[in-house]
Amino acid sequence: MMSVDKRNGILRRTAGSKPRRTLRSVFIGRPLQTADAEHQTIGKAVGLAVFASDALSSTAYATQEILVILAAAIGMASFGYIFPISIAIVVLLSIVTVSYEQTIHAYPGGGGAYIVARDNFGELPAQVAGAALLTDYILTVAVSVSAGVAQLSSAFPALSDYRAIIAVGMVGLIMLINLRGVKESGTIFAIPTYFFVFTMFLTVGVGLVRTLTGSLGTVIDPPHFEAPEIIQPITLFLILHAFSSGTAALTGIEAISNGITAFKEPRSRNAGLTLIVMAVILSSLFLGISFLASQIQAAPSEAETVISQLARTAYDGRNFLYYAVIAATTVILIMAANTAFADFPRLSALQAGDGFLPRQMSYRGSRLVYSHGIEALAVIASILILVFNASVTALIPLYAIGVFLSFTLSQGGMARRWWKIGHLTPGQTKVERGSTLRADPKWRSKMIVNGFGAVCTAIVMMVFAVTKFRDGAWLVLIIIPVLVMIFSRIHVHYRTVAQHLSLEHFDAPLRITRHRVIVPISSVHRGALAALRYARSLSEDVTAVHVAIDPADGEKAQQKWVTWGDGTRLVILDSPYRLLLEPLLAYIEEIDAQRQPNEALTVVVPQFVPRHDIENTLHMRTANILREALLHRPGIIITDVPYQIE
Amino acid sequence: MMSVDKRNGILRRTAGSKPRRTLRSVFIGRPLQTADAEHQTIGKAVGLAVFASDALSSTAYATQEILVILAAAIGMASFGYIFPISIAIVVLLSIVTVSYEQTIHAYPGGGGAYIVARDNFGELPAQVAGAALLTDYILTVAVSVSAGVAQLSSAFPALSDYRAIIAVGMVGLIMLINLRGVKESGTIFAIPTYFFVFTMFLTVGVGLVRTLTGSLGTVIDPPHFEAPEIIQPITLFLILHAFSSGTAALTGIEAISNGITAFKEPRSRNAGLTLIVMAVILSSLFLGISFLASQIQAAPSEAETVISQLARTAYDGRNFLYYAVIAATTVILIMAANTAFADFPRLSALQAGDGFLPRQMSYRGSRLVYSHGIEALAVIASILILVFNASVTALIPLYAIGVFLSFTLSQGGMARRWWKIGHLTPGQTKVERGSTLRADPKWRSKMIVNGFGAVCTAIVMMVFAVTKFRDGAWLVLIIIPVLVMIFSRIHVHYRTVAQHLSLEHFDAPLRITRHRVIVPISSVHRGALAALRYARSLSEDVTAVHVAIDPADGEKAQQKWVTWGDGTRLVILDSPYRLLLEPLLAYIEEIDAQRQPNEALTVVVPQFVPRHDIENTLHMRTANILREALLHRPGIIITDVPYQIE
Repeated sequence: MMSVDKRNGILRRTAGSKPRRTLRSVFIGRPLQTADAEHQTIGKAVGLAVFASDALSSTAYATQEILVILAAAIGMASFGYIFPISIAIVVLLSIVTVSYEQTIHAYPGGGGAYIVARDNFGELPAQVAGAALLTDYILTVAVSVSAGVAQLSSAFPALSDYRAIIAVGMVGLIMLINLRGVKESGTIFAIPTYFFVFTMFLTVGVGLVRTLTGSLGTVIDPPHFEAPEIIQPITLFLILHAFSSGTAALTGIEAISNGITAFKEPRSRNAGLTLIVMAVILSSLFLGISFLASQIQAAPSEAETVISQLARTAYDGRNFLYYAVIAATTVILIMAANTAFADFPRLSALQAGDGFLPRQMSYRGSRLVYSHGIEALAVIASILILVFNASVTALIPLYAIGVFLSFTLSQGGMARRWWKIGHLTPGQTKVERGSTLRADPKWRSKMIVNGFGAVCTAIVMMVFAVTKFRDGAWLVLIIIPVLVMIFSRIHVHYRTVAQHLSLEHFDAPLRITRHRVIVPISSVHRGALAALRYARSLSEDVTAVHVAIDPADGEKAQQKWVTWGDGTRLVILDSPYRLLLEPLLAYIEEIDAQRQPNEALTVVVPQFVPRHDIENTLHMRTANILREALLHRPGIIITDVPYQIE
Repeated sequence: MMSVDKRNGILRRTAGSKPRRTLRSVFIGRPLQTADAEHQTIGKAVGLAVFASDALSSTAYATQEILVILAAAIGMASFGYIFPISIAIVVLLSIVTVSYEQTIHAYPGGGGAYIVARDNFGELPAQVAGAALLTDYILTVAVSVSAGVAQLSSAFPALSDYRAIIAVGMVGLIMLINLRGVKESGTIFAIPTYFFVFTMFLTVGVGLVRTLTGSLGTVIDPPHFEAPEIIQPITLFLILHAFSSGTAALTGIEAISNGITAFKEPRSRNAGLTLIVMAVILSSLFLGISFLASQIQAAPSEAETVISQLARTAYDGRNFLYYAVIAATTVILIMAANTAFADFPRLSALQAGDGFLPRQMSYRGSRLVYSHGIEALAVIASILILVFNASVTALIPLYAIGVFLSFTLSQGGMARRWWKIGHLTPGQTKVERGSTLRADPKWRSKMIVNGFGAVCTAIVMMVFAVTKFRDGAWLVLIIIPVLVMIFSRIHVHYRTVAQHLSLEHFDAPLRITRHRVIVPISSVHRGALAALRYARSLSEDVTAVHVAIDPADGEKAQQKWVTWGDGTRLVILDSPYRLLLEPLLAYIEEIDAQRQPNEALTVVVPQFVPRHDIENTLHMRTANILREALLHRPGIIITDVPYQIE
């Protein structure tokens, strides 16, 4: 492409430079052109693998979470409650799914809780949703990789001491794969996801068939479980507590709505179908596992998971199929991190685009992914893993509040949207904050679905916050407001900058017609003379300044100047306290005070450039220090005249 | 002071700026003027405290070192050899002292092994001596502080886990005190040094008197010592080994000769007298302790030091006087580090002045001390302490080889000097490499003293290297050559730079008569227009360049340019790979290729300056990245036009 606009002197052309092959490109693949973006989208099958691993992995522990709460209070009577509670959770899951399916069609440009909250509630709720989700993605990576490594180290106890390091290594690996781009990482991760789905359906299927034929007994040799001495009465709080613990099954359900832009066209349709398929798989696996868990009377235990008890009961012992289930579960737990790697960068790019995060996060790297976001997620999650020494028990209470906060905001936002749509006349279309509102006769029922979902998830969130407050949930309740504060500070900064740079009401200042030039010199040498030569080409009004730390230096400079100064003014400033920068700055300010509006004051700094950067450590780098100091003084121009030593 | 040289346009005046009071000045005291330097010198009494702590502290372990070697081979028979070996060591000590006393008068400007080797052997041996001494000073700090902390933590076992941190904290404290200046640190450290000298003399005195009166028995309840099963025959190697271990008493003796410049005038006389007083105290304490150790039949043991056994035998138990001795010993061990803090910065400043270390090390800080050297010593010693976890056993084998290497070079150099003086005619004076050779009738005997000393210290060094090779001495034998290599690389760098900057045979290039100007702009805003305004004041030939990462950015820039470009050329470069810097550099190179010798190519960069530096993290800092990239291209001038946001 090449265009010329002669009248305004504008030439436009495509730059020839292609990225060099670096070590980086060996790991993450050859750079892609911006125009390649559409080829980097994924279909439904790969989309399920990329965005479902987080949600599906929760079937590995959701039933157990319910059982833990119930069994501690009412012992064996628990088994009667598991299935009903699971059905309630699946109902909630359906509501949330329907809500997100509607969201996907309303926001084809990608819109999780952040966008829905932004468009329907405004800035602050959107930033709260953003903070909640970002925190949760980070925790997803830390928790799921730690959980996977914990499984690994219970199989190989020798690895136990190196848990944190192994976990960080895995985060690094997932990061590298994600830097290659969502298409390739999807392909890499599709196999284990489908393997998990297949083995779990097989296990549940075998279990159900054996239940029908009456050949499925209870768990043989179950892990030790300490039954409560006093069976407590069943209360609403207990049911709610068990319910909210079980809603861990919902975590990850929002992933697809955040990542719509990763899908091939028609985006909304593909993403929506993928969401429904995911919800169906998730619900049936979860219900099946919960049903079978009560059938086999699985014991809640730290020593053996419910999945393990179920698998060895269904397969009559620890055989090949049993180990396949355990392996698949381990892998899906680690891979849940991948979903966060798909969503965190997209969300942070959205927030950066709105000016609430550093703008760099919205730039796409050589593989068209938001590399800064991917790297930031990997770094923060790794720090978290190292600080908590990869302990799942310590990390898990921090988890889930964020998810349910974002669910509530997202569904509340959708309810509000339906309410606004209800006020349109039939057939009317209205554009508000960039999203299109289109009249819909079913707005009332849809609003009720979303509103009910919002209330349910809000209750779950509050139960979470109360029951897990002391275990670490308080930390999240501090982190989210702090993040929101940081986001708004960033926003204020960008807004101020934009105002200051804006050309509205801008009066061009006077033309510069006179130059005054100051040349600071450390001694009289070729580099200084090169700067002097340039300075003299700018103006007749040139003053060289030498700060003499040692009086003898001053003498030397004075003598050499007679030969080499060529009549230019030299000011020697003796510095009794051996200060270098301060006398120079004071002198520059003295001159600057006399400056006229049509006059420019340029400080021409001789900058000595060694061959290798490391050699800079052998020098004072005065040029850099001086530049940093002068940058903050309005109206002073700093010119570097480099002098290369080769 | 103010002077004007009207004919050559040179004005000289004293800069008014005084250093601001910073947090730093609260800790290290108000800044001092260069002219104050002479008031910062110290007398003999303080000088002894500053420079003797290292040497005197060695009396705390030297006798024990001899005993350890002997007792392992010949058991109880050892006691017969301690005193004769100690006398031999004192003879060596006297020779070394005389040698250094002569050095002090020959080199009143300060001259340890480094200067003597440089003036009499040349560059390479001088750098070897420098490397050996610097290594040894670092080890002195690490070993002596660790030894002091070990004493402390044997008294308070709870501190044991925090040994390394406590040691690093102490190094930091000693650093701070030294940054205040040698005069104040001397005053602070004088009390414990004299306290140590006093308590030790008291102990030795009481011991000797009780020996004469026959009331001093042997150690009651001595620490467990495993006597050898087979008593080996006494061999020359064994004697040499014990002798060389005992020469630990000599470490630190060179301190004064390196630090002559710290003394009040007449420097040489004051420093020489201090050296002799120090040697006399050291010899008498060492001989006294060795004599009494064999009288009381002290056992060499890790559990209780010889000093402790001596003190409780002399004072009949663990009473107040006993604890005073232990406390004084602990403190003097830690304070031995202070001697290194007095000498390391002086030596590194000397080497930096000769261009073998970064020049910054020869600059004096606000308190007229070589702050960079003091800080470097503290940092490196702290790293060493952390790496070796403050373990004396691990650090001590690295120690002492360096000292004896420098002794050998220094005394060898002095011997060579006498030999040269021997070739002068009576009364003749000759200046060689900056030092004055003056005919001396006694040159022959002086040369024999120095030569004999050099041979003895060389033997000790070799015995050390052989007997302690596997314990860690090998590391020092690697470090010293590596350091010498680094020093000479630094020297080559400075020489190359000096040659390139030299004005000899310098032909001034053509005057600059034409300017071509390139203004890279990220978008059309006030900052960009400020840069454009400046650029247009330099030349008619201005081209603005915009790299469009996103085609839409290009459109926007193009539209705005029509209004604001004021007819200036704009080149828009579309960048399909989203590269920013590479297309810009390629374009600049394209223009640079057409440059004439009388033409300057200036890149005027709009640099956006936020109020707080931290806000820079929210921007790409393209201006800085571009400058770094352009600095290495000869002939391109980089101008920053800062645009402040406030």
